[in-house]
Amino acid sequence: MHKLVLMRHGESQWNLENRFTGWTDVDLTEKGREEARKAGQLLKREGYEFDLAYTSVLRRAIRTLWIALDTMDAMYLPVRNSWRLNERHYGALQGLNKAETAAKFGEEQVLIWRRAYAIAPDPVPYDDERHPRFDRRYHDLAPSELPATECLKDTVARVVPYWQETIAPSIKAGKRVLIAAHGNSLRALIKHVDGVSDEDIVKLNIPTGQPLVYEFDDELKPIRHYYLGDPDEIAAALAAVAAQGKAKAK
Amino acid sequence: MHKLVLMRHGESQWNLENRFTGWTDVDLTEKGREEARKAGQLLKREGYEFDLAYTSVLRRAIRTLWIALDTMDAMYLPVRNSWRLNERHYGALQGLNKAETAAKFGEEQVLIWRRAYAIAPDPVPYDDERHPRFDRRYHDLAPSELPATECLKDTVARVVPYWQETIAPSIKAGKRVLIAAHGNSLRALIKHVDGVSDEDIVKLNIPTGQPLVYEFDDELKPIRHYYLGDPDEIAAALAAVAAQGKAKAK
Repeated sequence: MHKLVLMRHGESQWNLENRFTGWTDVDLTEKGREEARKAGQLLKREGYEFDLAYTSVLRRAIRTLWIALDTMDAMYLPVRNSWRLNERHYGALQGLNKAETAAKFGEEQVLIWRRAYAIAPDPVPYDDERHPRFDRRYHDLAPSELPATECLKDTVARVVPYWQETIAPSIKAGKRVLIAAHGNSLRALIKHVDGVSDEDIVKLNIPTGQPLVYEFDDELKPIRHYYLGDPDEIAAALAAVAAQGKAKAK
Repeated sequence: MHKLVLMRHGESQWNLENRFTGWTDVDLTEKGREEARKAGQLLKREGYEFDLAYTSVLRRAIRTLWIALDTMDAMYLPVRNSWRLNERHYGALQGLNKAETAAKFGEEQVLIWRRAYAIAPDPVPYDDERHPRFDRRYHDLAPSELPATECLKDTVARVVPYWQETIAPSIKAGKRVLIAAHGNSLRALIKHVDGVSDEDIVKLNIPTGQPLVYEFDDELKPIRHYYLGDPDEIAAALAAVAAQGKAKAK
């Protein structure tokens, strides 16, 4: 039996400011750091040990992982970073706050972009400084590989190959794996692993900072999954995320 | 032309307490963290960018790297950890302070262990809890691979294969590499790369927190090396390290 632990990063500066983040590389707030520490403490208390960690190339996920590893006395753990675990790219919406977005595109259109599985916002223009081709961390990638906007379906399409070619083989080889990532890259992973439908996956909320354990058989078929923490805390965290989904930008 | 940057971690808790550290996994002091921040600021100001970083599996080197990467806005950089970049293993001396060591082994004997290239202290006994075989981070290694004591010659013997098989090929392949490590693993590297004699290498002092740049030709022959920082600061840092070498444990 294999165990995999998923961790969604906590509050970032733009969560707080209610702006669409996507691939923008904003940092955690102090509250977000505290969420990561608590996740690390919980994993340590429950006796979890890991052989390998995966995260994105965005600092809010990397810092979540670093803080958790530090708290678990496991800073020496090998860490693999991939853009494929990045948050969903939010296209032209990145950087805008909810009021700006509604004014620019209309409330209804924004709702569609946020709730539909297969409809992406307008892309960031090719010459816009926010386009990922200007970011040195993506210089090894062909411009055709780099998204300028994504719907969740697009995110799934670039997360799944990383799961299949890199993460899953390491788990099958017996490595105990921890993944620190983002709301939508984790949704993409869970959709694939658990066979969640297009309709259901957009409604799936993952609380921040709560370690989510997946158990697999030897063929990596999921047996069950559960959150590690106190059920009341998890319910509160889920309610907070769901409320944010209504009133705020992801 | 290839550039490689070496960085020695700053003050650790046991530097401060004047105890032999070796493979003991002590943390940086606040001063040590500040040294790492300053190194990161300097590299950033001088326009250095990296593709890959190497460090040990000991937290004082890893934290030095993390702080420097954070300061340089490069947390996404791939990091490779190896026990081969660990500090020299100080055997039975680990954990003892200078006074205890002198009382137990005699001042003269301790001097020999610290200054001779090829004479190692007594090993940590095989059943001693300080033996690395009890540490989960080394569980993948055969017990025969794990040192229970080292002289600098032994450290060279395990650093050089990692250079030859892993670090050097990545530099030749065009990666811009940063290494955050320890006084003696960096000595070992420099001895090999620069062909320093057994006699001279034990006298070579590397200041903490000062980025040391090596330039190589395409065949990885060293062209020149230099510290990046302010010459007065480097001289002061070197004098501090040399004085520590006299009055304190490494």
